[in-house]
Amino acid sequence: MMVESKEWYISAYAPEGVPTSDHLKLRSVPVSLAFDSIPDRHVALEILLISIDPYLRTRMTGIEDGLYFPQLNLNEVISVFGIAKVIQSKDSNYTEGNIVLSAFLPVAEYAVLASDLLIRKIDPMPAISLPDYLSSLGVPGFAAWVGIEVVAQPKPGSNMFISAAAGGVGMYAGQLAKLKGCKVIGSTGSDDKVQLLKDEFGYDNAFNYNTEASFDAALTKYFPDGIDVYFDNVGGEMLEAVLNHVNNHAQITLCGMISQYNKVWTERYGVRNLLNMIGKEVKMEGYMIGSYMDRFPDFTKEMESYITQGKITCKHMIYYGVESFLESLGSLFSSSNLGKVIIQVKSLH
Amino acid sequence: MMVESKEWYISAYAPEGVPTSDHLKLRSVPVSLAFDSIPDRHVALEILLISIDPYLRTRMTGIEDGLYFPQLNLNEVISVFGIAKVIQSKDSNYTEGNIVLSAFLPVAEYAVLASDLLIRKIDPMPAISLPDYLSSLGVPGFAAWVGIEVVAQPKPGSNMFISAAAGGVGMYAGQLAKLKGCKVIGSTGSDDKVQLLKDEFGYDNAFNYNTEASFDAALTKYFPDGIDVYFDNVGGEMLEAVLNHVNNHAQITLCGMISQYNKVWTERYGVRNLLNMIGKEVKMEGYMIGSYMDRFPDFTKEMESYITQGKITCKHMIYYGVESFLESLGSLFSSSNLGKVIIQVKSLH
Repeated sequence: MMVESKEWYISAYAPEGVPTSDHLKLRSVPVSLAFDSIPDRHVALEILLISIDPYLRTRMTGIEDGLYFPQLNLNEVISVFGIAKVIQSKDSNYTEGNIVLSAFLPVAEYAVLASDLLIRKIDPMPAISLPDYLSSLGVPGFAAWVGIEVVAQPKPGSNMFISAAAGGVGMYAGQLAKLKGCKVIGSTGSDDKVQLLKDEFGYDNAFNYNTEASFDAALTKYFPDGIDVYFDNVGGEMLEAVLNHVNNHAQITLCGMISQYNKVWTERYGVRNLLNMIGKEVKMEGYMIGSYMDRFPDFTKEMESYITQGKITCKHMIYYGVESFLESLGSLFSSSNLGKVIIQVKSLH
Repeated sequence: MMVESKEWYISAYAPEGVPTSDHLKLRSVPVSLAFDSIPDRHVALEILLISIDPYLRTRMTGIEDGLYFPQLNLNEVISVFGIAKVIQSKDSNYTEGNIVLSAFLPVAEYAVLASDLLIRKIDPMPAISLPDYLSSLGVPGFAAWVGIEVVAQPKPGSNMFISAAAGGVGMYAGQLAKLKGCKVIGSTGSDDKVQLLKDEFGYDNAFNYNTEASFDAALTKYFPDGIDVYFDNVGGEMLEAVLNHVNNHAQITLCGMISQYNKVWTERYGVRNLLNMIGKEVKMEGYMIGSYMDRFPDFTKEMESYITQGKITCKHMIYYGVESFLESLGSLFSSSNLGKVIIQVKSLH
């Protein structure tokens, strides 16, 4: 049984700007799903859901400096975190119909994959939808959980600021910080999202950075008592503004810097006031979730419990069809996206 | 008994550049040393030695943003860390002839001071000279000790880089790091100082940043295996260069940023590659020694032991006479100074 599978590959690197159809291309390839054609310890998969995360963009610059994510290979299919259904299995741990999670799925419709590239089977729980496994229980949820629970470890009552607060990571970081008793204020790019942060994600306050006089003016207004913890998803100018409003022994947790991904490093925003880190004795720490995979089971258990108790709200921005990859990736860099961006490749029924 | 005491005060703030005689002025004031004129719990002091440290410059900008040291008051005498001899005492804890340490001595020849502004009496040990109490056992030694022993806590075998390595703090930081088993490489501003770092302070290697092709080229050459710990005394461009050479989980300890003190913050060097802190999971932490005063006794005990065992070498740059304050302060911002800058106000015999 052969199928045609549409898949996305990178045909040219994009050192600057948002990648376009000049860089990312769709092609159709034949995939054999016949049982006899599948190697041992491999599975044939129908891909259901694909996680679209900002770090993906940093793998498309072609600049391999060893300091961040490794670059994708030209003409190779792009691999992502996602969910698939097993349609043939040559591994006794998996059978036809299993729903599986993997960090190495192609952005495609079908794939034959070594079974050691699967993370685990998913047994959906009534309160948890399949997209949640890529969201609150996936990359962004885990990034938020590691940042709040392991790296920042904010004390109850801390004044916490979260940028890109309505983004995939920000919405969970804010909710987790609220559960730890922090006062949480977020920045985001539209008035609708400000409302959402306050009404649905329980933020104490939020502002639209596009309509404030300046980042500095906004922080003066929203943090009259200064910032104790900054959960940074954007970097650059906002990080600099925060460093003018930090309290003694403030903690800055660097999760991402989406404002800087589309520039070569020499063109990135230069932060001029790191001296304040001495005067205010600030601790700033970057992290990658890959270094904390041993905590994934703890995270899953805690997050599933929060979700089933209704303590964590999820919001997804679903794109339909693998064809939408370029558009869904681009949405991360506008103010248009709201919640976790996911591509639904196939109907889930 | 009245004496004329020369003292330095700040007549105008210097937001940018090295302060000059336009900002810092010498005047002569009468001081009464007569026993009856001294208030209770005060002492009359003859000032012997004055510690000249880079942070002093940051108190002369006139820009009070609450983010670093507080500003000096115009027309008030400048206060510093130093050593004095008690010549009259109205406090039973001190008697004439005592040698005392204080963080609040005026840059002057004589002073009458509240005795609670004294830190302690010094009972000089044979192996320890009086200037050592302002150097290895004073502000720079304590700054180095807190940075290495408390903040950075480098593992044996770590590749450590220290900037301004022959400066007051750098020379002790390097020696303490060597005692912890690190591989220590320093940057400094002259070939003579490179030699000194290797010959007298036990650095594994050192380079003159003025004669290297670029900071980046120098770090490529001297750290082929990357940097594990950076002890930063200069900030700015060197900090940015370091962030292109960090290893996974590198630690950056921010002690000072002398390259940036003579600029208003908006003119300071903008560090563009903080994103590398995420990719390499770097921890960066600023500190002020004032927050670690509870560790001062531990520090003193450990450092005295190292000095008497000959494990720590001290180097001082002594200026003579209180008149030399402006020149000695300026020397911190050239490549000319070597070791800890101290003013000897009076003969020590």
